[in-house]
Amino acid sequence: MAKETKISMAVIRRLPKYHRYLAELLTNDIDRISSKELSERIGFTASQIRQDLNCFGDFGQQGYGYNVRDLYNEIGKILGLDKNYKTIIVGAGNIGQAVANYSKFEKLGFHLQAIFDKNPKLVGIRIRDIEVKDVDCLNSYLAQNPTDIGIICVPKEHAQMVADIMVKHGIKGIWNFAPTDIKVPDDVIVENVHLSESLMTLSYRLNESNLFNE
Amino acid sequence: MAKETKISMAVIRRLPKYHRYLAELLTNDIDRISSKELSERIGFTASQIRQDLNCFGDFGQQGYGYNVRDLYNEIGKILGLDKNYKTIIVGAGNIGQAVANYSKFEKLGFHLQAIFDKNPKLVGIRIRDIEVKDVDCLNSYLAQNPTDIGIICVPKEHAQMVADIMVKHGIKGIWNFAPTDIKVPDDVIVENVHLSESLMTLSYRLNESNLFNE
Repeated sequence: MAKETKISMAVIRRLPKYHRYLAELLTNDIDRISSKELSERIGFTASQIRQDLNCFGDFGQQGYGYNVRDLYNEIGKILGLDKNYKTIIVGAGNIGQAVANYSKFEKLGFHLQAIFDKNPKLVGIRIRDIEVKDVDCLNSYLAQNPTDIGIICVPKEHAQMVADIMVKHGIKGIWNFAPTDIKVPDDVIVENVHLSESLMTLSYRLNESNLFNE
Repeated sequence: MAKETKISMAVIRRLPKYHRYLAELLTNDIDRISSKELSERIGFTASQIRQDLNCFGDFGQQGYGYNVRDLYNEIGKILGLDKNYKTIIVGAGNIGQAVANYSKFEKLGFHLQAIFDKNPKLVGIRIRDIEVKDVDCLNSYLAQNPTDIGIICVPKEHAQMVADIMVKHGIKGIWNFAPTDIKVPDDVIVENVHLSESLMTLSYRLNESNLFNE
């Protein structure tokens, strides 16, 4: 469908933002928008928007702008949001529970099938009507239940071991909340959410002006 | 202290990773490392590392490499981690509680002073020994308690209103978990954690090969 074979991560990371703004337009019953108007709302230049979208095909028409619903659907497809993913969470602590309860999750096509933990206090409790299983069952669960995406919410010391089990059973996408870099084969995708790195970036930017005025 | 006045966000976003790897080296009693060894561990090229660190001053010595503790401390200072920040959380739902209970938080100098919510079921409960206050008290709390960093964990509809109150009372750094872009004056820093955008990026990357082979 598209022109290029390798899209830069910078473009890819902007796509969800387009998707989010287009969803808002639809909520507000706006069905058509010029690249100029879109650019004012989203904060990217109009030429940036045209360039980004051009990576994936021809959207919008000269003098008409974009059909919001079509563009929303197309970007959804590009993002793989028209698919369904069988998903598990390993680690049912605070972060694991927050992710499990995250309401947008199911809407985006990520269907939570099982949650695992090793803490006896957590094994057996129900989160979103899913009973937390003992992590000792992870291997046998995955052997019997093909799974698309594994979410790692365990302490960093255990993250690699959990990832290894996931990879062994054919999981191709890992959403990693553990504050460590996990190693996986080339055909497995890891997307990290490193909260402390985000917090440190905030702290850096707060201090940046002092740093260079000393 | 440093050579340049504007460091690119790409460099800034790599600094926490240096900090994390150096912490691991210290844990393993490694007190000296060459840029080559560091590069093998961290996965950036040695020249990238030298270039990044050169933005902030002269670290490391030809033929000796880096003193791990010194470099760790210096990067901590650059990241503003030698400072203390009075912090509040608005929104005590799943994400707010996960952030409040996030153990690295205090270690990095972020001291949680208060948590607010508007849900009567949450107001009054204790999270990390802090009683959740009614969000109606946010204005008067901030008027009496100067605060450095505000963490927004409310639904997107309320995020801008909460941010406006924070800004009015002099908060200069906002860590935003609401899935929306909030508008603030130029002297206020916003760092976003948009979980759905991260998840969509994962989903895109999982489908990328199909996308271009159709």
